[in-house]
Amino acid sequence: MISVVLVGTGNVAQNLFQALERTAHVKIEQVIGRNPEHLTFAKSKAPINSNFDAIPKADIYILAVSDAAISTVAEKFRDLNGLVVHTSGATSIQALKHCRNYGVFYPLQTFTKGKIISFQDIPICLELHKENDCELLHSLGESLSNNVQFINSEERKSLHIAAVFVNNFTNYMYTIGEEICTEKGIDFKLLIPLIKETANKLDVLSPLKAQTGPAIRGDQNTLHNHLKNIKNKQQREIYTLLSNAIKNTHGEKL
Amino acid sequence: MISVVLVGTGNVAQNLFQALERTAHVKIEQVIGRNPEHLTFAKSKAPINSNFDAIPKADIYILAVSDAAISTVAEKFRDLNGLVVHTSGATSIQALKHCRNYGVFYPLQTFTKGKIISFQDIPICLELHKENDCELLHSLGESLSNNVQFINSEERKSLHIAAVFVNNFTNYMYTIGEEICTEKGIDFKLLIPLIKETANKLDVLSPLKAQTGPAIRGDQNTLHNHLKNIKNKQQREIYTLLSNAIKNTHGEKL
Repeated sequence: MISVVLVGTGNVAQNLFQALERTAHVKIEQVIGRNPEHLTFAKSKAPINSNFDAIPKADIYILAVSDAAISTVAEKFRDLNGLVVHTSGATSIQALKHCRNYGVFYPLQTFTKGKIISFQDIPICLELHKENDCELLHSLGESLSNNVQFINSEERKSLHIAAVFVNNFTNYMYTIGEEICTEKGIDFKLLIPLIKETANKLDVLSPLKAQTGPAIRGDQNTLHNHLKNIKNKQQREIYTLLSNAIKNTHGEKL
Repeated sequence: MISVVLVGTGNVAQNLFQALERTAHVKIEQVIGRNPEHLTFAKSKAPINSNFDAIPKADIYILAVSDAAISTVAEKFRDLNGLVVHTSGATSIQALKHCRNYGVFYPLQTFTKGKIISFQDIPICLELHKENDCELLHSLGESLSNNVQFINSEERKSLHIAAVFVNNFTNYMYTIGEEICTEKGIDFKLLIPLIKETANKLDVLSPLKAQTGPAIRGDQNTLHNHLKNIKNKQQREIYTLLSNAIKNTHGEKL
């Protein structure tokens, strides 16, 4: 049995709470969040606490707080013997360096308010300051997910940059798609099967091989026609830059 | 029973063939492709033909050929009485204007060689020159999909531009994600659950509301750090342009 104190009230904390709560090997000793109103998700299911004065003993303290708050919150845990971990993709393990035992427990996923998703397939990226906590942290990871890996801060930094492209920027491509549809009174939902298949294709094909469209075909006629029809300056800039980048990346083929 | 002649041997033609073949209401009279070697997918399941000299009589002739070939191929069908349709998102209905009866049958999806997908949820966008073919074309659409809509050439043009953003450019975001991972020896597959959830989120949230990441948070520290770590000039340009665009789009919130 692994005893856990969970700190945070955001999407990551709420999703982690739901997943940990269902895990037979884990006991949630306490959920800590400064604002008691934000702790309703845990109330009646686990002890809750709105200050850092009475932190119970636990094997692992999970700081699922915003990147900017990690080092400040970590100060409250510096004299404890348990393992203190943060859940951030963008933050170095060094943010916890004043703690006695520390590491990273980063679930590589996007979490949405009110949308609870299964952790089973979510890659959990671990990092540790001291190797002797390895079994404990790995065991926590495995209690949630089938995909647990050790990734160092340097690798995690790159993974996080890659995640910005495939998640944040991809979502922005969807936003532009929606803008274009809305402008013409077309239902954006028409594009959702295409969007899902674009993602599902990665199961069988690398994105480099899956590339299609006017840019990779060198179809100047369509490129020209599209640019003529995109009235929004920002959308036009993005269309041009990305089409040229696709041409450059696949240059040998053209 | 709707009788159909299918022209083409590419991904769209092959996927359409598989779907039509399973449909009780449709009889495939013939599959036409210039290169007999490319017709193996239809061989033994339907009559095949490598020239346009013996086109059988049919209710609908589906030209699932490349955009550039549509008007040339359409010439072969100009004196027939059946309804001639193309399957292209980017091509006006006017490409078929020399035919007697013509229209568009555009399945809004990305098709991959060797990956046969179900048509059930694929939106099929129809357009017709003459209204009296409406029931026939709609009935063909409904035999394959639960989502059949009439979309005119002007709307389809916008839909196709939106599709370039959500499909081609999104796939390019995946490509950059893979480049960044490969450079550091990280397995790109770690990002696939994130990629799929980014797409699945659209079922519950518009992309405008789903936007996350350093740009929308106005997190200059992370933006600066990421840019410092992206060595590839083209990736840096894309990172900057898209981050600024996200800031502009969500400007009111910052």
